[in-house]
Amino acid sequence: MNWEQIEERLNQLMAESRHGQLRGALMMLNPVDIAGYMKNLDREKLLLLFRILPKDVSADVFSYMDSDQREMLVESIADAEITALIDEMFVDDAVDFLEELPANAVKRVLHNTDPHTRAIINQFLKYPENSAGSLMTIEYCEVTPDMNVRDALKSIKETGVDKETVYTLYMLDAQRRLIGTVPLHKALVVPEDTALMKLMDPGIISVNTLDDQEVVADTVRKYHLLSIPVVDGEGRLVGIITSDDVMDVIEEENTEDFEKMSGLAPAEEPYFKSKLLTLAGNRLPWLMILMFTSIISGAIISKFETVLAVNILLSASIPMLMDTGGNCGQQASTLMIRGIALGEVRFSDFFKVLWTEFRVGLLVGLALSGVTFLRLLLLNQASLVMAAVISVSLYATVVIAKSIGCVLPLLAQRVKLDPALAASPLITTLVDAASLFIFFTIASRFIL
Amino acid sequence: MNWEQIEERLNQLMAESRHGQLRGALMMLNPVDIAGYMKNLDREKLLLLFRILPKDVSADVFSYMDSDQREMLVESIADAEITALIDEMFVDDAVDFLEELPANAVKRVLHNTDPHTRAIINQFLKYPENSAGSLMTIEYCEVTPDMNVRDALKSIKETGVDKETVYTLYMLDAQRRLIGTVPLHKALVVPEDTALMKLMDPGIISVNTLDDQEVVADTVRKYHLLSIPVVDGEGRLVGIITSDDVMDVIEEENTEDFEKMSGLAPAEEPYFKSKLLTLAGNRLPWLMILMFTSIISGAIISKFETVLAVNILLSASIPMLMDTGGNCGQQASTLMIRGIALGEVRFSDFFKVLWTEFRVGLLVGLALSGVTFLRLLLLNQASLVMAAVISVSLYATVVIAKSIGCVLPLLAQRVKLDPALAASPLITTLVDAASLFIFFTIASRFIL
Repeated sequence: MNWEQIEERLNQLMAESRHGQLRGALMMLNPVDIAGYMKNLDREKLLLLFRILPKDVSADVFSYMDSDQREMLVESIADAEITALIDEMFVDDAVDFLEELPANAVKRVLHNTDPHTRAIINQFLKYPENSAGSLMTIEYCEVTPDMNVRDALKSIKETGVDKETVYTLYMLDAQRRLIGTVPLHKALVVPEDTALMKLMDPGIISVNTLDDQEVVADTVRKYHLLSIPVVDGEGRLVGIITSDDVMDVIEEENTEDFEKMSGLAPAEEPYFKSKLLTLAGNRLPWLMILMFTSIISGAIISKFETVLAVNILLSASIPMLMDTGGNCGQQASTLMIRGIALGEVRFSDFFKVLWTEFRVGLLVGLALSGVTFLRLLLLNQASLVMAAVISVSLYATVVIAKSIGCVLPLLAQRVKLDPALAASPLITTLVDAASLFIFFTIASRFIL
Repeated sequence: MNWEQIEERLNQLMAESRHGQLRGALMMLNPVDIAGYMKNLDREKLLLLFRILPKDVSADVFSYMDSDQREMLVESIADAEITALIDEMFVDDAVDFLEELPANAVKRVLHNTDPHTRAIINQFLKYPENSAGSLMTIEYCEVTPDMNVRDALKSIKETGVDKETVYTLYMLDAQRRLIGTVPLHKALVVPEDTALMKLMDPGIISVNTLDDQEVVADTVRKYHLLSIPVVDGEGRLVGIITSDDVMDVIEEENTEDFEKMSGLAPAEEPYFKSKLLTLAGNRLPWLMILMFTSIISGAIISKFETVLAVNILLSASIPMLMDTGGNCGQQASTLMIRGIALGEVRFSDFFKVLWTEFRVGLLVGLALSGVTFLRLLLLNQASLVMAAVISVSLYATVVIAKSIGCVLPLLAQRVKLDPALAASPLITTLVDAASLFIFFTIASRFIL
């Protein structure tokens, strides 16, 4: 059965009010897909479906739903029901959900949860957005140095943490400081009376509650981890972050880089959920700034008015010079921004990078200006001087664009600015102005 | 101890030839960090360090090393040693490594491995690059419908698969077809005589051996999986892919999108490992194409030579029109490319997107051209007609750029082209030409 057939079948069961069968059919699906199916339902059906599901499944489905739909549900069901839902959810999902609610709704909802959950959630809500603390969950398995494998398995069974987070056991000392980790798979292949200390990996890779999510993602990816422990200022374990949440962070960070490179303010909501004014507002600031900086290029053109009047070929070459310069600069800056993001390029590589890009510029520029020289002579019947002036300007533009393009992201990172943010707009402005200035200087020297 | 202190300590132990202590110190580190430390060693020290490590650790370290260094090692050690290394490595890492070696070296190395490993590796080497088959590993745990939890735990202990891949048990029927999965954590919280069938999740989420790695990454991310089973054409389980490998795929795919959007051919090697000619070669094709398409804009300028001669303000406005149009188009196309990559935007949204972007263009354009109108009147003392011609052209450019920017990626995807690849260059060309054409048409109508 493909997805459309599944949807059709569910719609049919819903229409015929066969709730038992509907529940049976839904239980065959992954919570992600159930949430996907719910996307197109109206309020009434949504509520019906949601109540048909067993509590633990509905909590899971709820955490995968759109914020719009969650809101719709929350408006429709009683506070007691929401509270039950929150008690059933994993803490990190519950916190995510509560962060979306208006403040008075959060108060109302939390008022009814049990005091222990409420205390934990309140603590979580205090961590800054996008910090390790706001991402972590507290459903993990802790062990002590005196335990053996049998004890650990018993403790898993007793605490009943029914989640992937049991796959790493966290060894804590008496002060709850993290002293090492035991991968569960190691414990499963040895006799049950083996001391956990024998299996422990003492090399602790952890993050701090206040670390940015980017640090979390980079660390998890670098060390190929399934989960990473989060410790407080004194090295005490307070939670863990799992790799599935890290994947979402990676995509989020990438989206942010894409947006910044295109001069967009990072969006809070998915495209179709955003208001028109928000969409426009996210784009306007950089467009306005860049529009004003492009006036510099216009001013250079005005200043060399007399040169332009000599031959229309000069005016006609402006788009080619500006576009090619812009493209060259963007290529170099993209490679740097990506290299910095993946930890492959550092500020200490500054001169190595500049030397590389300079030579790449020489090579690429040679090809581009050679072709342009011939094109001008053969197709446009330009004079030798005219063809030379335009091609040499192009050559210089390419080399300068490559150099500016690679240097700016590195400088931005050095002064703690985001390379993706600072680089792109400035590069366009600088490259445009530089290329036009070179062009007119050469032209006025040899043509006038 | 921070990383520099650790490095210093290791260097010291190495210099003093305290091999026992060196081994002890290295065993405290993560294999990723050992590989990182090895990066700066010369051939002799590299070899020494590598031989000091226990076999299973060295195999792990080897899989995290740079390709350059692996090559250096392989050249220095005997075939028998390489073979021992391969026998110790997980199959997916061994295959990755062999894919980098020249063909005759692969033959020589495989000649010495045991026939079973050789058969498996040979089969793996046949899968196309970047397919699910080339990413998967065969170290997984299979179970049968008649087993209970105790049997499963015994089977894990017996096969001794000492890797994170035991955390999902794969239920196979007599034909080795995958019929469901049992998350290990579910098995750990129930009595040992519980039948596995009771714990089984029948909703199978899997990929085919020939599926592209992008499909693998999207599926794992969507369903928040730790690992995903890979099946052949008949639904038989042939391997699994773990989430840590998927994270690398996600970054790879993102890098590719970044590169394509900037008109770069996807790089095979990291920046500093690439030859100068390769770097230049990756950039030249699009630069050349875009340089030629920008001639269209030049031709439009030539055609309206007489208009330009009227007032230098017209020439001076060309950079602003071209830049702003380009930026508007890029903003819209980036949002679409990202939306398509994350599965948020589909071709069926075509008109919805176009309508949204059209209105965003109207709003943003109003602000930009309003400011420009005032700037021209107040700062540049332009005539009312002149200011109106330039601002209205800008307004039209913004709206058209937004529309072209959102439509092209969707069209590209529709005809099975990569949205990131097809969109950016074409958009620049079309927006430039359109904006200049509108500008001159309006100008010649009202100014001449």
